[in-house]
Amino acid sequence: MSKTWTAALLIIGDEILSGRTQDKNVAQIGKWLNLQGIRLSEVRIVPDVLERIVEAVNALRAGNNYLFTTGGIGPTHDDITVDAVAAALDVPVVEHPEARAMLEGYYAKIGKELTPSRLRMARVPKGADLIPNPVSGAPGIVVENIYMMAGIPHITAGMIEGLSGTLEGGRPLVSVTVGAFAPESEVFELLIAIEKAHEGTQLGSYPFFKEGKVGANFVVRAEDEGLAAAAAKALASGLSELGYEPTPGGL
Amino acid sequence: MSKTWTAALLIIGDEILSGRTQDKNVAQIGKWLNLQGIRLSEVRIVPDVLERIVEAVNALRAGNNYLFTTGGIGPTHDDITVDAVAAALDVPVVEHPEARAMLEGYYAKIGKELTPSRLRMARVPKGADLIPNPVSGAPGIVVENIYMMAGIPHITAGMIEGLSGTLEGGRPLVSVTVGAFAPESEVFELLIAIEKAHEGTQLGSYPFFKEGKVGANFVVRAEDEGLAAAAAKALASGLSELGYEPTPGGL
Repeated sequence: MSKTWTAALLIIGDEILSGRTQDKNVAQIGKWLNLQGIRLSEVRIVPDVLERIVEAVNALRAGNNYLFTTGGIGPTHDDITVDAVAAALDVPVVEHPEARAMLEGYYAKIGKELTPSRLRMARVPKGADLIPNPVSGAPGIVVENIYMMAGIPHITAGMIEGLSGTLEGGRPLVSVTVGAFAPESEVFELLIAIEKAHEGTQLGSYPFFKEGKVGANFVVRAEDEGLAAAAAKALASGLSELGYEPTPGGL
Repeated sequence: MSKTWTAALLIIGDEILSGRTQDKNVAQIGKWLNLQGIRLSEVRIVPDVLERIVEAVNALRAGNNYLFTTGGIGPTHDDITVDAVAAALDVPVVEHPEARAMLEGYYAKIGKELTPSRLRMARVPKGADLIPNPVSGAPGIVVENIYMMAGIPHITAGMIEGLSGTLEGGRPLVSVTVGAFAPESEVFELLIAIEKAHEGTQLGSYPFFKEGKVGANFVVRAEDEGLAAAAAKALASGLSELGYEPTPGGL
């Protein structure tokens, strides 16, 4: 079996924990990582408290190939992600000349002043490089294996789009879905048998209730497309034998 | 200052990490906890892997008054939350007679058989009590300070609704919002000054771009309603002095 590449995601922000803002970055980044051949192995959401961010950064960067953070890189007083990552790495915070130039260009273009608080967005942990931000002026930041990105989902999207294909990963995880109006509790043994018979696959079942009936979508995931297809085929046969009509692609 | 009650939330499920399913429980449970006077202090999302769940359960239950889990209490082979919590607490898994009776009643009512895999949903860590499930048959489970709930958001909603008012907490956190078409980077110093002048408040700023203009909603949070209102009033005055029209309630 090939090496598995993993990433963790650290979401920084009181507004997510309080329920004020609905997170969209877990799903967005999880899907994007699948395409990079990297598995999202853990997510943590912590408040805008320096020690809590430092602790999570250190726990997550050690156990994974990559750590992504979202949130806390804006201009305001509760934007402390750069300080926290610098503290975690035990390096000073410095102004990045290229980031400053980007901000100068951006604010000149939109006819606004580059105030001291906006200039905070040029601060990086020493040794860092920048992640371009095609949406708004302030760049993301990469240092060691830590990628610091904006928290606002469409700005995050611009940053990950730019990173596509630049990260070393394994083979993308392929998924094949088979749906059926079969209560998942009735096909339990079948799922175990299929997973056992196809080493390297993971099988998930996602129950639903529609058209007045219960059923589930069964998702086979594997790095090998042929393996995923074979397991899905075996699953479809097994469902038929139990009297449930399988629907390739899911219901 | 009164005691702060905190809770952590552990979300269990490959489907959230892969991006297949959009999480809704963080926001739903975060908001509900605010009303109970309990602050959501951390969220972790981990895959359906026993050791990873055990590790997270032990890390989170120790540092918080309450730990909530969602997901992994259904009938299928990847539903291992009960086993993981039992392992974390070092107690055996037992069948709960009342849970079994609930399942028998539920499946009799809908005219289905109580199969061995469905009966898995009567398994609990020894010493546990049940959390009623008004939506589908299988109950949630509470043991020590750990509340295990379903992952499907409307079922989770039914369970937390039933728990409302039963958990010891502090004073609910009150929030007051003031919006303005003010770039957050221009009111940075004002926010710091307001927070400093009103001890016990937290100030968040949530930028937006609408009607062709940038602005932000500024949210004051405090346990004391009068304190939050006073800080919001001071903030509105400060915004006016800087030339921005404040909008109570937010934009």
